[in-house]
Amino acid sequence: MSRSKDVQVQRSKEAAGDTAPAPVALGSDFLQLDIGQAPPGCRTEWLADRLREAIADGRLPVGSRLPASRVLAEELRVARGVVTEAYQRLAEAGQVAGRGRLGTTVVAAPPAPGPVTATDPGEATGTAAGAAAGALFEAGAREGAVSALRAAPCRIDLSPGVPDLAAFPRAAWLRAERAVLGSLPPSGFGYGDAQGAPELRTAVAEWLARSRGIRADPGEVIVVAGVAQALGLLGAVLLANGVDRIAFEDPGSLGARQQLEYGGITTVPVPVDEGGLRVDALRASGAKAALLTPAHQFPTGVVLDGERRRALLRWAAEEDGLIIEDDYDAEHRYDRTPVPALRSLLAERVCYAGSVSKLLAPALRVGWLLVPPHHHEAVVTAKRNADLGNALLPQLVLAHLMTSGELERHLRFVRRRHRARRDAMLRAIGTHLPGARVHGAAAGLHLTVTFDTPFEDTGFEDTGFEDTGFADTGLAAAALDAGVKVHPLSWHRVRPGPPGLVLGYAAGPASEIEEGVAVLGAALRRSRPTR
Amino acid sequence: MSRSKDVQVQRSKEAAGDTAPAPVALGSDFLQLDIGQAPPGCRTEWLADRLREAIADGRLPVGSRLPASRVLAEELRVARGVVTEAYQRLAEAGQVAGRGRLGTTVVAAPPAPGPVTATDPGEATGTAAGAAAGALFEAGAREGAVSALRAAPCRIDLSPGVPDLAAFPRAAWLRAERAVLGSLPPSGFGYGDAQGAPELRTAVAEWLARSRGIRADPGEVIVVAGVAQALGLLGAVLLANGVDRIAFEDPGSLGARQQLEYGGITTVPVPVDEGGLRVDALRASGAKAALLTPAHQFPTGVVLDGERRRALLRWAAEEDGLIIEDDYDAEHRYDRTPVPALRSLLAERVCYAGSVSKLLAPALRVGWLLVPPHHHEAVVTAKRNADLGNALLPQLVLAHLMTSGELERHLRFVRRRHRARRDAMLRAIGTHLPGARVHGAAAGLHLTVTFDTPFEDTGFEDTGFEDTGFADTGLAAAALDAGVKVHPLSWHRVRPGPPGLVLGYAAGPASEIEEGVAVLGAALRRSRPTR
Repeated sequence: MSRSKDVQVQRSKEAAGDTAPAPVALGSDFLQLDIGQAPPGCRTEWLADRLREAIADGRLPVGSRLPASRVLAEELRVARGVVTEAYQRLAEAGQVAGRGRLGTTVVAAPPAPGPVTATDPGEATGTAAGAAAGALFEAGAREGAVSALRAAPCRIDLSPGVPDLAAFPRAAWLRAERAVLGSLPPSGFGYGDAQGAPELRTAVAEWLARSRGIRADPGEVIVVAGVAQALGLLGAVLLANGVDRIAFEDPGSLGARQQLEYGGITTVPVPVDEGGLRVDALRASGAKAALLTPAHQFPTGVVLDGERRRALLRWAAEEDGLIIEDDYDAEHRYDRTPVPALRSLLAERVCYAGSVSKLLAPALRVGWLLVPPHHHEAVVTAKRNADLGNALLPQLVLAHLMTSGELERHLRFVRRRHRARRDAMLRAIGTHLPGARVHGAAAGLHLTVTFDTPFEDTGFEDTGFEDTGFADTGLAAAALDAGVKVHPLSWHRVRPGPPGLVLGYAAGPASEIEEGVAVLGAALRRSRPTR
Repeated sequence: MSRSKDVQVQRSKEAAGDTAPAPVALGSDFLQLDIGQAPPGCRTEWLADRLREAIADGRLPVGSRLPASRVLAEELRVARGVVTEAYQRLAEAGQVAGRGRLGTTVVAAPPAPGPVTATDPGEATGTAAGAAAGALFEAGAREGAVSALRAAPCRIDLSPGVPDLAAFPRAAWLRAERAVLGSLPPSGFGYGDAQGAPELRTAVAEWLARSRGIRADPGEVIVVAGVAQALGLLGAVLLANGVDRIAFEDPGSLGARQQLEYGGITTVPVPVDEGGLRVDALRASGAKAALLTPAHQFPTGVVLDGERRRALLRWAAEEDGLIIEDDYDAEHRYDRTPVPALRSLLAERVCYAGSVSKLLAPALRVGWLLVPPHHHEAVVTAKRNADLGNALLPQLVLAHLMTSGELERHLRFVRRRHRARRDAMLRAIGTHLPGARVHGAAAGLHLTVTFDTPFEDTGFEDTGFEDTGFADTGLAAAALDAGVKVHPLSWHRVRPGPPGLVLGYAAGPASEIEEGVAVLGAALRRSRPTR
C-alpha cells in the first residue's frame, strides 16, 4: 500500500514544522495499539477504551502526556477526529485534561472496574455487536428491542425517526441559553410549574396554531419529556379510568406499543390500509381509545384520508371514544399539502402529542400534550408525580427559539436537506433494491420498502431466522453485521405481511445513504443466490 | 409623603439627560395602572398581566411602544426591576420585542383567553392567594398540597428544601454548555442511553466516592429526573415484586410520601426519635422496605445514630429488607462531621437516591439512583419506559461541572452563605419566636421549630383550623396571608405531636429571613392575645 509511505512523508514534514514542546515518548507502539482490532465504525469507542485500560493499569500513569492527536492518528492510520474525540471522552470523564500547547495530560485514573451491566453502551463493543446482532433481532418485539438496537454500534444508521442531527442549531441554542440565563430571576431556579413553564406553554400554543391549525390556550398545554412520556402518563390516567384496552395501528410503532403495554394497557391491533386506519375494524374491536399517527402513518407513511377522518370522528362521538393523535413528524412534508391535525377538528375527543424529537433532536426530551378538559387535571397530576415537571432551562431556551422564529428557520433549512436525502435514498433503492416497493415517501423522515418476492430462507441460515416467518429480521441482522442499522418492518407489525424494511433517510448525508442501501442490496443478493 | 417629590426631581433630571428618542406617549396613566391594586410581592406578575390585558384589548396595539422601564417604574413607584422583569416575561411570550434604543415594541397579541386551569400559576394572583391560603392549608396532607403551596405567590419564601438560588453559577453553566455544544458529535443529539449519559454516570460515581464514601461503578448509576422520579420508579418496581408497603419516617416528607402513595404503595409510618428511625418499630411494622433520610432526617434534622444504623442494617440482613436512602441534603453541614451514607456500608440492601436540587437548583431536575444489582435492570427499564432517559445537554453540562471542580467550588461557596443565613434565622427565632424549640440546625437547608405551649385556638378562628388539632396549619396560613410562606410541621406528620413549623433559611438573604420570622412572630402573638 502506498498509504504507508504517504503517512511517513507527512509525518516527517509535520515533525519538522511542529513548534510544540519536545515530542512525547508515547505512541501507538508504546501502548501496543492495533487498530485492526477495532470493530468497524467503533474506532473512537475502541480507542477510548484502550486508553482507559492503559491509564487504569499504569501504562499511562497520572501526570503522563498523551501523544499529540495528529501523531497518534497517523500511527493508527485513522482520521484525526477519531483520536480527538477519544481524548474528549476521557476529558469529559475527568481522566485527562488540557489541550493547549502542553498537550493532553492524564489527571486521574478511572474507577476500578465494577460489575458490568447490560445497559452500559460503553461495553457494547463492535465485536460484541456483531455477535449480538442475531440475538438483538431475535428479541423481535420483546421489550426494549428498539432501545437495544438504538444502543448497538454501527457505521451507518438508517433507523427511522431521527432528523438531521448535524444541522442542530448549536449557536442559536447557546445564544438563547445565554439570554435565558441572563434574565431568569433567582426564584426561577426553584421548583417550577409541573405542567411546564408558562413561557413554553405559550410558545407551544402559538406554534401549534401556526403550524398545525390547533387552537389551544397555554393553560391546556402540558409539557412532557417527549411523546414516550406522554403515552405513559395518558396510559396510566386511562387505566385509572377503566380504559385498559387501546386500539393500535397495525403496522404501527413497536416502541409506542411497548410503552403502553409496559404501563399495563392491552393494545388491540387494528389494520391499516391505503386509506389509513380501518375505522370499521376499530369499531368492531370494542376499544374505547385508539392511538393513531394520522398525518403520516408510522411506518407505512399513509395519510388518513377524508372519508376515514370523518368516520373516525363519528366513532369517537358515537362510542364515547378517545383518539390519541401522535403527530410525530407532521412538520416534515415534501410533495403534498399539510394535513390538519385531528385535534383541530374535535378537541374534546382528541389527545394530541408532539415533540421536538423530529423538529430538533431526540436528545432534548421535550414534548407537549393536549388532552380533553375532563382528563387535564389527572394528567398534570400524573406528570407532577412522575418528575415534578420538565427541567426549566431547556424549556425556556426552546420557548425562545420558538418565539424568535429560529425554530421555523431551522425547520425550513432541514426540510430542504431532508428532501434531498429522501431523493438520494429513492435513487439508491432504485439502483440496489430493484425489487422493492416504496411506501410513504411524500413526507416524514423515513420510508418503508416491502418485497413482493418471498425471501430465500437459505440466505439467512446464519442468523437463525429461517423459520420465523419474519425473514426481514434476518436481512436487518445481516445488514447490522455489515455495519448498517435498519428496522425490520415485521418489528412494527402484529399480523404477518410481506417482508420489508423501515429506512430513515434524514440523519445522514447522501453518501452514507447510498452506501447503506448498497449494503442492504448486497445482503439481499447473498440471500438469493443466482442459480 | 416626600417620596413623590423625590421622584419628580429625579424624573426631570433624567428626562433632561435622556438621549433616547422622543418620549413615548404611554405611561401608567394611559394604561390606567394603579399599583395599589397589586398584591404585595406579586407586582411583576400583576404588571405583566395588566400589560397583557392592554395588548389583548387593543389599548397597546401591535407596533406600539411600551414606556421606558425607568419612566414606568417611577410613575408606578416600583423598583425598575419590577418593570424590566414584566417586560421580559412579555418578551419571552413573544408579545413584545427589542430593548435597544428604539425601546420595547408590541409585536403580537396574546392568544384569546381560554379555559383557566387550576394549575396555571400565572392565574394565581396574590389576591386569589390571600383568599386561597386557607383552602391551601386546609388541603393538609391531600395530594398536591406541597405543589400547590409551591405555586402560591408570596413575598418571602421560607419553604424548606431550596438552596441559595441567587448563587446559581450561571456563568460556569454557560461556559460548560458552550464546551459541551462545541464537542458533542451529531449522533449525540439522537436517542441516548436511557440509563443516563456515560459521562455523567462516571462523574456521579466519582462525586459519590469523594463526597459520600460510596464506591459505585458508572454502570450502576441511573440518572433520573430528581429524587421524585427515583421514588416513582422504585415504587413501581417494588410493587411489581410484591412489595406494596414501604415504611416511612414519621415525621417525614409529605411530598415523598404522596409520591409513593400515588404509585399505589401503602406507606407505613414508623416513629422518629432523637436517635432517628425507631428500628424496633420498623421491625414490628412488618414492612419489607423503608424510606429514610439518615444523614439529616426530614424534617427533624436528627442524624441516625450509630446504634440505630447497626440495628437497621441487621434488620435489612435478617428480614431481607430494602433500605431506600434519600440523601437529600447531605452535602450541607456546618457544625458536625459528615455521616457516611448507608449505601457505603451495605450496597446490596440499600437503594441510594440523590440529586442536584439542593446542590445547584431544583429546576434542573437531575438526580441519580443506585439500586441493588437484582433490581438494576428493572429500574432501568422503568426509566426507559418513563421518558427514554433524561435530556442529554444538561447531563453533559453537569458532568462538566462535576469533573472540572466547579461544582465543588460552588458548594464551598454556598455553604458559607447558608451557614450565615442559618445563623440569621437562629437569631431571628430568638428574637421573634421566644417560646420556640429549634431542631436539626447543624446541617441542611432548613430547621424545624416546635412550640411546647399549645396554640390558642382563638387566634386562628378566621382560618378555619381551630378544630383540626393541627393548629400549625393555621399559623402557616396566617403567615401566607401576610406574604410569608412556610410549611406547617403537621403536614409532614401522620400522628399528632406538638405544633411546629419547618423553615427553610438557605434561599433568601438574611434581611428576608429576619423579616419573615418577624411576620411569624406577629402572627403567633395575634393568636395569643395578652390577657
